[in-house]
Amino acid sequence: MRSIKHISIIGSGNVATHLGCVLHKRGLIIDSVFSRKLSRAKKLANQISAKPCSKFKQLNLESDLYIIAVSDDAIKEVANKLVKLISADSIIVHTSGSVNSRALKAGKSGVFYPLQSFTINRDVDFRSVPICIHSADEKIEKLLLALARKLSKSVYRINDDQRSKLHLAAVFASNFSNHMYHLASKICEENEVDFNVLKPLILETATKIKDGSPHDMQTGPARRRDTTTINKHLSQLAKDKAAKEIYKLASMNIKKQYK
Amino acid sequence: MRSIKHISIIGSGNVATHLGCVLHKRGLIIDSVFSRKLSRAKKLANQISAKPCSKFKQLNLESDLYIIAVSDDAIKEVANKLVKLISADSIIVHTSGSVNSRALKAGKSGVFYPLQSFTINRDVDFRSVPICIHSADEKIEKLLLALARKLSKSVYRINDDQRSKLHLAAVFASNFSNHMYHLASKICEENEVDFNVLKPLILETATKIKDGSPHDMQTGPARRRDTTTINKHLSQLAKDKAAKEIYKLASMNIKKQYK
Repeated sequence: MRSIKHISIIGSGNVATHLGCVLHKRGLIIDSVFSRKLSRAKKLANQISAKPCSKFKQLNLESDLYIIAVSDDAIKEVANKLVKLISADSIIVHTSGSVNSRALKAGKSGVFYPLQSFTINRDVDFRSVPICIHSADEKIEKLLLALARKLSKSVYRINDDQRSKLHLAAVFASNFSNHMYHLASKICEENEVDFNVLKPLILETATKIKDGSPHDMQTGPARRRDTTTINKHLSQLAKDKAAKEIYKLASMNIKKQYK
Repeated sequence: MRSIKHISIIGSGNVATHLGCVLHKRGLIIDSVFSRKLSRAKKLANQISAKPCSKFKQLNLESDLYIIAVSDDAIKEVANKLVKLISADSIIVHTSGSVNSRALKAGKSGVFYPLQSFTINRDVDFRSVPICIHSADEKIEKLLLALARKLSKSVYRINDDQRSKLHLAAVFASNFSNHMYHLASKICEENEVDFNVLKPLILETATKIKDGSPHDMQTGPARRRDTTTINKHLSQLAKDKAAKEIYKLASMNIKKQYK
């Protein structure tokens, strides 16, 4: 195989949909889309000129690449079924941040992990989505890197161990920062303050780290060791035990950081 | 006073500088800039055609408005000195998120709180900076609202109690989300992964809340109740006790949120 041209997609969720659409848009041929629910397979397949199916044996069995974009728990099982059916020349990848590449147990396998928070019906500029590539087989890794570069300008070689740590880091960077937004929105709601007031601040805080490390960009009462404000805030949080604990812990960490 | 035209600024830090520059840019006249260090007063005053000074009595004493943009601890003291010197018609405001407006003890006073994270030498589009206005005196509040609307399209009336809660919310939304970025960057560094891989995700997470509440936008293992991944992450954090505690607490909170 000189380059990957024909692709089948297993899955019909956020990652499968966004990835399927951008692959189709960049001129790759999507042979088939598999979903346990035929209606879901059809929905995606229709958008990208592919054949929908809900049974593995109905998949095109000669694709260059099979992308498994299903929930982490289901990857192993899907890969096991797939390997028995498809051509020995085909490559299998999954798109998970936390599942080891060995889970695929296929001769030709790898990982194709687009690191972005995808939401259905929300457009993403794929050119700026980092794609993390890994394969134990150098030739396959080259093919996957070349494919990824057709979709994005940010393509990284990241091995299994690094990817698993990166996924952990992403939980802090995205899931937990969103949780901080939630705690802020709750405080606003309880005090009849429009949460929109905070949105420019949130966006600026995220934008700033383009220009400097989060360590350098840290501001606030804990960074200033402003104990008066910290104590005032803690007393304001008396009713919300969970938020108070987060406030304490984060402030303590930040204080330590600038000792 | 029909409208505020002549302004003096007390302070030469981030807020004083950004505010002074935008007021000057929008055609307001900056009479004087006070800083305890004359060199600092000069630096800002030169940019905005104002008279620099390092002694209170050297201030222009007939400005329409005095903006106290100094650290929270110093506001009361500055206001006390100012009140004895300036014209009885002049208005005094501070720019703090957490100090009560009563701290000014002036006849004509209020709060002019621009809610953004300012960094020196980093341009901010002031049009989108929310400005929170308050005065116990309705006429003064109107004058301050009119002035704020010359600078920004997001102007809010926020009373003392609400502003204090908003400031608390801002600590979560900005300082603590930045701390989450820091914890993520630390994990990257320790595993020789380029932190740049995470930046598009961080930006997308912040951008998303324009379109929906953080509650609706929450993703990740805790939201999915994916105990396998959570436990794997906790074991990966064995060496970093502080990060582990944050991970536990945030995950527990998120789980509760979607019960």
